[in-house]
Amino acid sequence: MIERLAIIGVGLIGGSLARALREAGAVGEIVGCGRALPNLERALELGVIDRYTQHPAEAVAAADMVFVAVPLGAMRGVFETIRGHLRPDAIITDGGSVKGSVVMDAIAAFGAVPPFLVPGHPIAGTEQSGVEASLSDLYRQRRVILTPVSTTDPVALARVQSMWETCGAEVTLMSVGHHDEVLAATSHLPHMLAFGLVDALARMRENDEIFRYAASGFRDFTRIASSNPVMWRDICVANREALSAMLARFGVEMTDLADSIRHADGEHLLEIFERAKAARDRYVDIRSS
Amino acid sequence: MIERLAIIGVGLIGGSLARALREAGAVGEIVGCGRALPNLERALELGVIDRYTQHPAEAVAAADMVFVAVPLGAMRGVFETIRGHLRPDAIITDGGSVKGSVVMDAIAAFGAVPPFLVPGHPIAGTEQSGVEASLSDLYRQRRVILTPVSTTDPVALARVQSMWETCGAEVTLMSVGHHDEVLAATSHLPHMLAFGLVDALARMRENDEIFRYAASGFRDFTRIASSNPVMWRDICVANREALSAMLARFGVEMTDLADSIRHADGEHLLEIFERAKAARDRYVDIRSS
Repeated sequence: MIERLAIIGVGLIGGSLARALREAGAVGEIVGCGRALPNLERALELGVIDRYTQHPAEAVAAADMVFVAVPLGAMRGVFETIRGHLRPDAIITDGGSVKGSVVMDAIAAFGAVPPFLVPGHPIAGTEQSGVEASLSDLYRQRRVILTPVSTTDPVALARVQSMWETCGAEVTLMSVGHHDEVLAATSHLPHMLAFGLVDALARMRENDEIFRYAASGFRDFTRIASSNPVMWRDICVANREALSAMLARFGVEMTDLADSIRHADGEHLLEIFERAKAARDRYVDIRSS
Repeated sequence: MIERLAIIGVGLIGGSLARALREAGAVGEIVGCGRALPNLERALELGVIDRYTQHPAEAVAAADMVFVAVPLGAMRGVFETIRGHLRPDAIITDGGSVKGSVVMDAIAAFGAVPPFLVPGHPIAGTEQSGVEASLSDLYRQRRVILTPVSTTDPVALARVQSMWETCGAEVTLMSVGHHDEVLAATSHLPHMLAFGLVDALARMRENDEIFRYAASGFRDFTRIASSNPVMWRDICVANREALSAMLARFGVEMTDLADSIRHADGEHLLEIFERAKAARDRYVDIRSS
């Protein structure tokens, strides 16, 4: 049971945690905190939070659990603002998509990664954002990765794990570096391809006509290009090392593919497509099993 | 009204045309033709066709409309086989995803593009294939592009256009070259990215784990990598010029993106992502309007 939950950043991710814990009866009071007043008022109207403040230091006062769900670029500022205002037994966790940068931000703000800080990442979301889009079942049967460091307090870790399990999520522990590599491959790289493709087409003459003849596969393929640009700018900068490595790996693959197309090497193309189809079909099996 | 429709290749595309015309009461007899006997028998069982033969020359005898829906690599062989067996007033159209190669195949088989051949491309389909996946409403509110050449008979063109409109499709006319460029941008390039991404991940160590942590966006993004590898090999070879040009254009975009990530140039990244999001959101508006 969480007595008082402070949510810094009441958007899709923060709002959905609030809704899920409320629905489970696992939280007393929920205090929302953010910069945009209309969003906080909407969150209050929707019953996602019980009250709000625009000051993180005020939000965390008397909170036993603090969830920081702000864009990665705002993480360090939040840590600096709440330092010295936390309850002695408060636990902090976050929803940032890159864990290496959150750990660096914590070191910058607190001098070291505090034992009560459990870096985390719920693998959930849509291309929507804002509290309006939040859902009480967003985390049901989704994975949440927690990336404790050597100084992380096991009790804090257990409480955060339990919080996410209450929301129906499956919690996995992973090292910070491994998390950032896995996410670069499965999420950050695909987003770059979708943004890059749509931008490349948008910059062509007659791009309206081009989009007009796109089939339904294109709609699915490019859905993630409708994601929040600021959030993705922050992710790219925060995870630039792992993402650069994945982009290079993908570049090698595409050079090979482009060469095979130019030389009409049907045999090699078939080999690539068959391997990809087998992996993709297997992935669907993994997900549904 | 079509008296006797011959469908060469009774898969998703051919089967769906048969179902749609049947449902509209716009066709007398439907003769199916293909190489795989079990698929033809299944098509008969499902009522998609009235009878079948494995010989294209037999299938087209007495047909007033012939729809060739075979992989691009098999197109020329079909044209060569049916030449000399067609009714004098027969009209042929096809469902190939690349029109330049179909025109070349027609020239190779008939000596020139026959006036009664109307090259066409229904922009519809799923990653499924085979007659089992065929649907009577696959073409409803979808676009069909017809690419007549200078020698195409206007009456043949009008009959093919009317056939597709009977299926609920919206028909557009376009030049062969323009079609192949537009499709390279909106369909062929996205498929290359999806195949390339999934293959690049599949070739990494621990790829099972990587796929395990993929979020739902990844599922949508990679759906088209489950498409038929033989069909896509043929499309790549057939449209290699336009596709190579699009791959090069995309390569420039990705080099720019990768440089911005490596140098943590957040401002430029934000510019790219915002332009892409605006284009993608606008595309969704175009599609739903």
